Formats: sequence, structure tokens, C-alpha cells
Amino acid sequence: MRPFVELISKKRDGLALTDQEIHQFVMGAVQGTIADYQISAMLMAIFCRGMTEDETVCLTREMTLSGRTVDLSALPGPIADKHSTGGVADTTTLILAPLVAACGVPVFKMSGRGLGFSGGTLDKLESIAGFSTQLSVPEAMALCRKSGIVILGQTEDLTPADAIFYALRDVTATVESIPLIVSSIMSKKIAAGTDVLALDVKCGSGAFMKDLDSAQTLARDMAAIGRRLGKRVSAVITSMAQPLGRFIGNSLEVEEAILALRGEVEGDLMEVTYALGEEILVNAGRVSTFQEARQMLKKAVSTGAALKKMCLLIRQQGGDAGVIDDLSLLPHARYAFSVPAPKSGYVGAMHTDQIGLTSVLLGAGRQKKSDRIDPSAGIRMEVRLGDYVRQGAPLCTVFASTDSACHNAVIPLQQAIVLCDKKPALPPLILDRQ
Amino acid sequence: MRPFVELISKKRDGLALTDQEIHQFVMGAVQGTIADYQISAMLMAIFCRGMTEDETVCLTREMTLSGRTVDLSALPGPIADKHSTGGVADTTTLILAPLVAACGVPVFKMSGRGLGFSGGTLDKLESIAGFSTQLSVPEAMALCRKSGIVILGQTEDLTPADAIFYALRDVTATVESIPLIVSSIMSKKIAAGTDVLALDVKCGSGAFMKDLDSAQTLARDMAAIGRRLGKRVSAVITSMAQPLGRFIGNSLEVEEAILALRGEVEGDLMEVTYALGEEILVNAGRVSTFQEARQMLKKAVSTGAALKKMCLLIRQQGGDAGVIDDLSLLPHARYAFSVPAPKSGYVGAMHTDQIGLTSVLLGAGRQKKSDRIDPSAGIRMEVRLGDYVRQGAPLCTVFASTDSACHNAVIPLQQAIVLCDKKPALPPLILDRQ
Repeated sequence: MRPFVELISKKRDGLALTDQEIHQFVMGAVQGTIADYQISAMLMAIFCRGMTEDETVCLTREMTLSGRTVDLSALPGPIADKHSTGGVADTTTLILAPLVAACGVPVFKMSGRGLGFSGGTLDKLESIAGFSTQLSVPEAMALCRKSGIVILGQTEDLTPADAIFYALRDVTATVESIPLIVSSIMSKKIAAGTDVLALDVKCGSGAFMKDLDSAQTLARDMAAIGRRLGKRVSAVITSMAQPLGRFIGNSLEVEEAILALRGEVEGDLMEVTYALGEEILVNAGRVSTFQEARQMLKKAVSTGAALKKMCLLIRQQGGDAGVIDDLSLLPHARYAFSVPAPKSGYVGAMHTDQIGLTSVLLGAGRQKKSDRIDPSAGIRMEVRLGDYVRQGAPLCTVFASTDSACHNAVIPLQQAIVLCDKKPALPPLILDRQ
Repeated sequence: MRPFVELISKKRDGLALTDQEIHQFVMGAVQGTIADYQISAMLMAIFCRGMTEDETVCLTREMTLSGRTVDLSALPGPIADKHSTGGVADTTTLILAPLVAACGVPVFKMSGRGLGFSGGTLDKLESIAGFSTQLSVPEAMALCRKSGIVILGQTEDLTPADAIFYALRDVTATVESIPLIVSSIMSKKIAAGTDVLALDVKCGSGAFMKDLDSAQTLARDMAAIGRRLGKRVSAVITSMAQPLGRFIGNSLEVEEAILALRGEVEGDLMEVTYALGEEILVNAGRVSTFQEARQMLKKAVSTGAALKKMCLLIRQQGGDAGVIDDLSLLPHARYAFSVPAPKSGYVGAMHTDQIGLTSVLLGAGRQKKSDRIDPSAGIRMEVRLGDYVRQGAPLCTVFASTDSACHNAVIPLQQAIVLCDKKPALPPLILDRQ
């Protein structure tokens, strides 16, 4: 085994590491035989010089094998999972999971918590009284076998290498590296043991990837790496030029998901949900075309089958399923405050990350991992891109547990929603499918 | 003050850091408020993205100010110093220091120890019985005032930032970065307080810089940064395509220096010494042209004034000055072994670093800092580039304290000295002056 400094030097000079060298890197990090300062130098060298697809495949595989892997082969049929790179007002998972489960494709989803401007599925579900996401893998498998759906928190013994790398990347400015993002996401997804994976790569002002080029690279690389490691993967690149749904915040997004499963929501949120659902149903072999898939998905909404699956999901994980019929059982904020348009005009652009960060300040999310969240806090958007608003009409409504939090959100939101004189050209919602 | 991760991110994206940001970096490293893994990520980002001249000036200044600086203003006239980037058979300092001192320019030189294939002046001087390089700055100033010459080890309180950075660079593959090399060397030289500095930038197979382009960049940057920080600096780029002098090893190089000061050595070693001496005498204002300087230097040898200064240097620092007249007082190796040419031919090339590393294996140098050296071990070169040798004639002679060490050196040296059928074109010795 060569001294690790020689491997850093090789990557630093833009050369590709061998499988053996990547194994040495990942194992050394997990076993503690490589110092943090050497890991971070390697991460920065990877950031600056990139990795070949072969290197990324190998890094992903080694990270997957650094801990426990879940074996779902005892469950019947292809099992589906979905991953989003993180957006604002993106409650897709809460609609999509019961929807495809109602169409006969079981969903076994390990989710994360929100950080920064992105929300997290676990936080949203936990705004339902009693709902528990802390399940063991055998418990989750038993639920999935019975109901065809389960959503749980990632168990700690999965991909320990990712935990080590991520903690260092966060403090060494090496987060935004395609091979490091791909290996981090895909190692967790592969360790989670599902067969079919739909990726929602967000692109725009409220996403990690601000431009289409980098979103396409990320989507292509994640799909390619997933396929080479035996998964049926597809990726949809969707616009995050504005909040996807109408609601931002935890109980607010549960409310929107229930309304959607009742068939009462239309527009971008449903379009993205259907696009991802099409990918899953086709990849799982449930149907052969997107058209058939779309029909099946719409029927699952109109017949109430999808809503029933949501009810089952909530009940089986200890939640109060009464919320399905009575949204007033969800936590509601003490204060609500309308944010008026400072002038008349068309909604020309949105700084969506800024809107997401304002919801964090209202209490809906976390600035750092240890922060507590307020399940009832958040924002309801009253306008979409291209809408005309008169001065004083509401741009959005903010919800929080204090009056001052509401007040403090007004100016950031007025700045984040840009009004202009001319009706803007609207970007497409589905930017690419891979 | 911004979180340090934002500064890493800025450099990672190829942007220039402000003076304030570089101050935060250096002070944070010295005060321990920035973690090692963040320092190493920054060093790798600097390695990959480079630094502007303004950034390098600022980094050098901040590193200089991170510890004690020596004030030599109480000493009369401009004080001279010399630095070599490290070569093989490079005993220039031991000849140059007494030589320019004999010409009336005082020398106050802080030196280092050998590491890897490069020798170190302190190690060489300590092969003289009794010679001490562990002087305090006031002691060294007193000696310099009296005799016009002193050579001492770098005191530990100089440039603590460099010590921290260097230890991390060594294990994170970030040594070979021009701004990091320049700031490391120049911060020490500026903290050492001299007025005139001659830089010998080595280029070729036995040097850190293998090609002329990178040697020129390093020389230009060091000279520019030194001048901007108030020093009279000049740089000579000299060939290290073969060992500079005839001897490699500590007592062997002291022997060669004494022979040189006696006027008994000619060739490349003297040419480089005179070129550096010219730069110093002109920069110190002692003469106005290189021709005058050369005459003055040659006279200091022919009159014995330089040898007398060497004698004074040895005596004042506790060494046995008897070596000046009787070289047998220097340590001599127990075993000597001639390395024969494996075939007839012209000496076409030398892997000079390989020759240097073989001298380390013989005991003349260190592989790691804690290694002890054997002052008597080393190599005497019997051929130079372009020489014709017959099969079996000696290429060099090796000296060591064991028979087996000598034996083990034969094959590496035969491989390092390349014989070919055609007389090779010889590279110039002085490649550039800046």
C-alpha cells in the first residue's frame, strides 16, 4: 500500500485513481488511518480536478460498502425510491409515494431532514401528531410488505464514509463537486437496497444547481453511476425558478399533499409528481408507456386509492390519520401576516433560495443541524411567475409563532419576488429527462 | 470576520484573497482557531488555483509577521544573505560566505539542515569538530560585528506560520506550489533581517525545479516579492543537470570548500560561487559592475583573505580551525569503494536526484527529519557530463562506515550516470540571471 500522500499528489495532478487507490482512501477514512487534513486535501483535489466516470462508480461502490447495506430481496417485486436534490415548496415525495404505491409499485423510502433552504420529508411527516420515522429496517420491511409503502429516517450504520466526507466537505468548501455529490447521494440510495430510483434534479434559483448545464451533468452522472451499479434509474430535471407548490413549511406542505391526493391541486407540483411517477411505473415494468402511466396515476387520484394509501401510511407509522379528513388537526401558526406588493407589476423573477431561507427564519427549517423547527411556520405563495399584481395586493402570506418573526419576513420576501413592467417569458417546468 | 470556509470557497473558485482575508488565514493558523483540515483544504486550493503577486506578497508579509523578526540595523552597512533552492554537491555557501565577507560585505546567514537529496549547510559545518551553529541572535550579531561573518541555525521563533504550513504541505501533496514555496522561503529570509539576498535557483535533474520555465517563474516571483518587501534581491538560475561540485557529503564538502578557498578548485562550483558573489557585491554597493566584482572576489582567493575569513568563522564558532591546514582532521569514512563504468561511452546524462538519494542511503543525509547523519559518508564524482570513460574506469567513489552500504550504492549510481555512444551537447551552467 502506497503512502496516502502519493494518492493525493496523483489526483492533484489530474490523474485518475485506480480502484485499489479509491478503496485505500475510503477504508482509510472510515478506519481512521488517514488524518482529516489528508482527507480534506484529497477532497479539494477531487473538487479541482474532477473524477472520471469509472472513478465515480468506484468511489460510490466503496462508500456503499463502507457500512451496512439493506437487502430488500425478501420483498415482492421491484421496490421504488425517489430522490430530490432539494428545492423549495417541494412536497412531491408526500404525494408521489402513496400515488405509485396505489398503482402497485411498493415504495421503501429512506428520507432526510431539511437543512438550509431545502425542506426535508421527515420533518414534514413529523408535523402529523404521533407520526414516527424512527423505524428499524426489519420493522420498515414488515410495514412495506403489508401496505406497499414506508418512509423512514436513514439508519446510522449506512454509508459511514459519507458521514465522514460530508462533515469535512461542509467546512472545507468542497460540497459543490459533481463526483462528490453523485457518490454521496448514490451510495446512500444503493445501500438502501431498492430497485427503481427516480431522481428529481432541481435547477434554478431555488436549487443547488443554478444552471441547466450543471443540472444535466449531475443528472447524467447520477443516472449513469446508478445504472452501472445495478439500479433502474431515471432522472427528471425540473425548474426551481419559483417555489414548486403553493406552500412552504412542514404542516403546510402536508396539507398541500393531502389536498393534492384529494384531487384538489393542479399545476407545477402535480406535473412534476406525474413525471416522476411515469418514470417509476415504466421502470418498474408496471406499464410500458408514459401515457399508460399517466392514466393509471390520475385514476389512483380520482378513485381515492392514493389518498387511502396516504391514510394507511400515516396510521401504520403511529400518526393521527384523522388529518386526512380534517386538516384543522395539523398544527397551525399563531400569527399570519400578508406580504403586500410594494408596487404594481408582473412577477418577473423569484430568488427562490431567498424565499426558502426566509421560511427558515420563520422557524420552518434549520440553519444548522441542531436547530429545532416549528412545524406550523411557513409561507403560502399567493402569486406565480408571470402573474400581474396591483400595489398592496398580497404576494404571499407568512405564518409563525411570533408577530416579530412575521414582520421580519416582509422585506426579504418583497425583495425575493421581483416585480417588473413587462410580462416575462416563462421557463419550461420539465427541463430534461434522462 | 467571515467564516473561514467562505475564504476557502473563494480561493477554490480561483478568486484572489484580500489582504484582510490572508491575515485571517495566517493568524487563524498560528492561533489554532482554524482546524488543520481547513488549512490543508486552503493549501490545496492555492496549489490548484495559484495566487496573484499581490496575494503572494501579502502571504509572505503575514507569515513574516507571524513570529519574531530579526533587527540587524545595529550592524554596519548592508548585510548579505544567500539562499539556494537545494541541489547536490552544492557547497557554494561555504565558499561564498567567507569570500564576500573578505570583500567587505558582512554575511549573517541562517541555514537549514539537509532533507532528501539536498544537503544542508548546518550539517556540513558540524562535521568540523566543535563547530556550533546553535547561537542566539545577540550572540550571532556580536560575532558578525567582530568578524563580518556568522552562520547559525534558524531560531525556532521565526515564522511559526511557515512551520505549521510546511508540516501540513509535506503530508498533503501541496509542497510543489510556486506561491507556497515563495512565501515559505521569502518569509524566513525577510524575518532574518538582512539587506541583500542572492538566490540560487537550481534547475535540472538534481533540483526541485526540473525545467527552466518553472525555475524562471520561481526566481522571478521570489525576486519580485523580496523587492516589494524591501530587500535587494537578485536571482541566478543555475544548472543542476549534474552534481555541482566534485564532492557530495558533509565533511567531503567542507574539504572541497577549503580547497576552493585555497584556490585549488576550478569549474562549475567556482563559476556559480562567483556569479552569486558578483550579485551580492553589486547589490551591496561595494562595486558597480560584475567585472569589478569578479576581480575583487578572485583577489580575495589569491591573497588568502577568503581562506583567513573561513578560519575565523570556524574558530569563532568553536570549531577546530586546524582543518584549514590539515584536512585529515576532518572525519573520514572507514570504507571507500570505486564504482566502475559498466561499459565504455560518453557521460550523456545524470539522474542527479538519484545520486543525491544514494548519498543519503550511504549515510550522508536524511530521509526523514529525525534521521541521524554520518558526517564522513558520501560520494566523490570522478566524471562530468561529456567525459569519455572506458569500461571499468571509475565513475565515482563512495564512502561509508560499512562495507555493505558501499556495495549497495554501486548499482543505483551506475544507473544514475547514463553512458551513451555520442558525445552529448552540454547545457549551459548559468541559465538566467534576474
